Amino acid sequence: MNEFNTQRKIEFADTDTGGIVHFSRFFVFMETAEHQFLEALGTSVVLELDGQQIGWPRVAASCEYTSPARFGDLLEIQVRVRRKGVKSMTYDFAFLRDGEEIARGAMTSVCCVLEPKKRVRPIPIPSFISDKIDEPTTP
Amino acid sequence: MNEFNTQRKIEFADTDTGGIVHFSRFFVFMETAEHQFLEALGTSVVLELDGQQIGWPRVAASCEYTSPARFGDLLEIQVRVRRKGVKSMTYDFAFLRDGEEIARGAMTSVCCVLEPKKRVRPIPIPSFISDKIDEPTTP
Amino acid sequence: MNEFNTQRKIEFADTDTGGIVHFSRFFVFMETAEHQFLEALGTSVVLELDGQQIGWPRVAASCEYTSPARFGDLLEIQVRVRRKGVKSMTYDFAFLRDGEEIARGAMTSVCCVLEPKKRVRPIPIPSFISDKIDEPTTP
Amino acid sequence: MNEFNTQRKIEFADTDTGGIVHFSRFFVFMETAEHQFLEALGTSVVLELDGQQIGWPRVAASCEYTSPARFGDLLEIQVRVRRKGVKSMTYDFAFLRDGEEIARGAMTSVCCVLEPKKRVRPIPIPSFISDKIDEPTTP
Repeated sequence: MNEFNTQRKIEFADTDTGGIVHFSRFFVFMETAEHQFLEALGTSVVLELDGQQIGWPRVAASCEYTSPARFGDLLEIQVRVRRKGVKSMTYDFAFLRDGEEIARGAMTSVCCVLEPKKRVRPIPIPSFISDKIDEPTTP
Repeated sequence: MNEFNTQRKIEFADTDTGGIVHFSRFFVFMETAEHQFLEALGTSVVLELDGQQIGWPRVAASCEYTSPARFGDLLEIQVRVRRKGVKSMTYDFAFLRDGEEIARGAMTSVCCVLEPKKRVRPIPIPSFISDKIDEPTTP
Repeated sequence: MNEFNTQRKIEFADTDTGGIVHFSRFFVFMETAEHQFLEALGTSVVLELDGQQIGWPRVAASCEYTSPARFGDLLEIQVRVRRKGVKSMTYDFAFLRDGEEIARGAMTSVCCVLEPKKRVRPIPIPSFISDKIDEPTTP
Repeated sequence: MNEFNTQRKIEFADTDTGGIVHFSRFFVFMETAEHQFLEALGTSVVLELDGQQIGWPRVAASCEYTSPARFGDLLEIQVRVRRKGVKSMTYDFAFLRDGEEIARGAMTSVCCVLEPKKRVRPIPIPSFISDKIDEPTTP
């Protein structure tokens, strides 16, 4: 599995004075879509492993906006694995409204041990997650 | 003028369960720093021109994260103009804590007429704004 | 109709460093549940009437929290009309997880004409909305 | 000490499609003002005590809105201690713009030990905090 589609309806609190969805919200939409993808794989973005809390801090995130979204819009969000690394995942995202792409983004998350007040520590993606994600084939 | 520095203290609502600032908040930090830059130039991100509302929707935004920020951290935010286009501005941002860079980002905003329920319409940056921004010199 | 139930799954961005849902998010949850209630009635929270934009600014909002919600929790949200006024609606909300109430809130929204840069102006709730909402019977 | 004043400038991301500050943001403003009050007392909302993480989850929050705030507005926020309990604090908040009150709110926070995945556990407010807060005198 290396693809996942979900939907999201724009809420009032997602919008700003410009009458459109605040651009920062698309990053929340990407993250939640990533989590739904992990959940569809049977895992979670926050889990415990040998008594340690595992998380996926982002090291890079980007988005390009073609057309604004507004309150009440129903967006289709397409998640695609671009790269499965040893310790990190890079995802591509497309946002569509009525079949037309309005934005596309990307995000790289690193599998880490999270300890309060310490530096986050990258670890190899546990095999029970990694094994469920297919290497994307070259286009 | 093509550089501007500001500061921001991390609030509790900026953080997430991972104990760190949610990555999407850095985009809000960039936007507000951009607005403070425009304000320092004597203009505003939202203004009226010949009875029309002018705004700066983003067409691209990106951020790379080196080290997480936490509740109470005081960040220095450096805004730099990377490119002054006819209708758009591209800014680079650096986030520092105690003098050490923890994230860097970029954002491209397009000067637009905002009309409710219509497509946003790009226009040339008004000269009373554009004239105040120096072309950055090549490094 | 004066009751409406919906569900909402807690997202990562809803949480804070305390490991729980940030208390301010419950107000967003209430608002979106109200909008879904209006949508179930066949109307919308943002609509145009005789060329004017109608909205429902809040004049009061409150919430009491019994037990914290965490990332991944599935909340049931119960919307109940407490009072149908001439120009305003007061709603009660209950938040349940696994059948147990974890929070309850209330919100009063006033039907208004929204004009840019002017004061919001309360108006009687249009009959095509008001007629669809039953007066709640005294308990 | 039982009073504290602070200021806050409305950011673009605070606003919504109605052209005004989203009502849920006032709760973030209250929380940050509370934290600044605690900081002015020489303590913090998040601290460690005997190896345990102490926090102040909210058990109640409310706000009444008289007049909307908009992008760029400078708000004065007045924090007043209404009640100092053994384990909880209740604060009143007033929001003013140009000397005129536009909203008022209240919040009750309980001093708690926060342990991951366990119920938050209320504890008496540590004396080094409690001693610095004067009982408000009856008006």
